[in-house]
Amino acid sequence: MEQAHRVAYKVYYEDTDAIGVVYYANYLKFLERGRTEYLGARGRSIQDWNRDGYLFVVYELQMKFRRSARLGDLVEVVSTFKLDSSYRGRFSQRIECAGELLVQAEVDVVCVDARQNLREFPPL
Amino acid sequence: MEQAHRVAYKVYYEDTDAIGVVYYANYLKFLERGRTEYLGARGRSIQDWNRDGYLFVVYELQMKFRRSARLGDLVEVVSTFKLDSSYRGRFSQRIECAGELLVQAEVDVVCVDARQNLREFPPL
Amino acid sequence: MEQAHRVAYKVYYEDTDAIGVVYYANYLKFLERGRTEYLGARGRSIQDWNRDGYLFVVYELQMKFRRSARLGDLVEVVSTFKLDSSYRGRFSQRIECAGELLVQAEVDVVCVDARQNLREFPPL
Amino acid sequence: MEQAHRVAYKVYYEDTDAIGVVYYANYLKFLERGRTEYLGARGRSIQDWNRDGYLFVVYELQMKFRRSARLGDLVEVVSTFKLDSSYRGRFSQRIECAGELLVQAEVDVVCVDARQNLREFPPL
Repeated sequence: MEQAHRVAYKVYYEDTDAIGVVYYANYLKFLERGRTEYLGARGRSIQDWNRDGYLFVVYELQMKFRRSARLGDLVEVVSTFKLDSSYRGRFSQRIECAGELLVQAEVDVVCVDARQNLREFPPL
Repeated sequence: MEQAHRVAYKVYYEDTDAIGVVYYANYLKFLERGRTEYLGARGRSIQDWNRDGYLFVVYELQMKFRRSARLGDLVEVVSTFKLDSSYRGRFSQRIECAGELLVQAEVDVVCVDARQNLREFPPL
Repeated sequence: MEQAHRVAYKVYYEDTDAIGVVYYANYLKFLERGRTEYLGARGRSIQDWNRDGYLFVVYELQMKFRRSARLGDLVEVVSTFKLDSSYRGRFSQRIECAGELLVQAEVDVVCVDARQNLREFPPL
Repeated sequence: MEQAHRVAYKVYYEDTDAIGVVYYANYLKFLERGRTEYLGARGRSIQDWNRDGYLFVVYELQMKFRRSARLGDLVEVVSTFKLDSSYRGRFSQRIECAGELLVQAEVDVVCVDARQNLREFPPL
C-alpha cells in the first residue's frame, strides 16, 4: 500500500488572523503546498507539468476544521492520491500539529490542458 | 422567505495566481467577506460581535468550483444563513460573475466565546 | 492641479494577523488596489492595459507605517501619479482611516511589454 | 563581523499572480519569514518574544525589485540586523534566487510592548 506523503511548514504571521490563529483560507495554501510536493516527490515538479500542458484543477473539496494552528507551530501536511477514473482524482489530506489532527480535507481534482479542456491524468 | 444577501467585489492582482485566474484559496476570502457583510446587514458588525465574546468559527465546509474569475471581474457573493440547532448554523453561499455560478459553498459554523467554548448562537 | 484619487476598502479578517492589526504586507494590496482604480478612473481598466501589452511594474518603493488599521476599519487609499520621465512614474500614496494617516508610500513604476522590455508610458 | 542569516523557501502558486511571477506584496512575507528565522537562530522564537511582551514592528521600509521569482523557484532570504539606537534597529535583507539578486530591502523596526508603547530592544 502506498505510503502517505508528508511535508512540514512553520506558521508565520502571514498565516494568522486577528483571532490569533491560522486564518481558515490559509489552510488551503498548506494543502496545496502538500499536493505540489507530492507531485515533486513523484519525480516531476508542478512547473514541469504545467509547461507540458498539464494543469491540475480543484473542482470540489470538503474540509473539516478540528483544531487551530498558531504562530510558530510546525504543521505537517499528509497527502495520499487516488485516481477515481481517467479524468478524476482525489487527494485525501490532513494537516497535523504535534501528532494532532487540525484539518481533514478531501480534494477532488481534474486535469486540464492549457485551453482548460479536460484531459486524462498522466501516470503520477 | 428570507432574501439572500448580496455584496460585490472586484478581482485584483492579489487574488490571482500564475494560472491567470483567482487562486482557489482566495474564494474563501470572498466567502468570508460575504458572511461578514451578512452579519453587518443584520445590524451588528463582526468586530462588535467579537468584542462581546461571540466568535463565529467555521468547522466544516464543502465547495464546488465551477468556473474561474479573472483580473478585473466583479464577483458577487450571495449568502443565506440557517440555524440547524442552537449551536450550529449553515451559510449557503454562491460566488457569481455576470449571473454565472463560479463557486458554491456550504459553510458550517459554530459560535464560541473568547475561551473557545461553544455557546448558543445569538439571534442574528 | 490634479485631484488625488480616493477609494475606500473595509478591513476583513484576511487582512489582519495575530497581533490584531493589519499585516504589514497587506497594506501593499490596498496600495495596489488604489493604483488599479486610479487607472480605471482615467478611462481604462488594468486588464485592458495588460491585454494591449502594457504592464506596470513596481521597481522601487518606500513606505512609512504610522498607525495600524483593525478589523472592520474603513481605510481610504489616496493616490496621485506623476511621470518622472517617459520611462518612469511615481505614485504617491497614502492610506488613511477616519482622516488619520496610517501609511505613506512612494511607489516607483516602469512600464514593460509582455516580454518584459521597457516601453514608454502611454498617456494615463 | 557578523555572518548573514540565510533561509530558503520554495515559491508556490499562492505566491504568484496573473502576470506569472511572485506578487510584489508577497516578497514582504518572505522578508518577514527571514526576520522570524533570524530571531529564532539567535535562540528565541518570535512567539516567545511576543509572549514576554516584545513585539517587533516595522515602521519604515525601502525596497528595490530587480528580478522576479516564478513558480517552483527556490528563493533565499539573506538577513543582517544592526541596532541604530536602543530603540531602533534595521534589518538589511536580500532575496536571491540561484545567486541572483531579486529584491533588496532595508526594514526599520522598533520594539513595542503589548500596549504598543516603545521599549528598548532586548539583546538579540
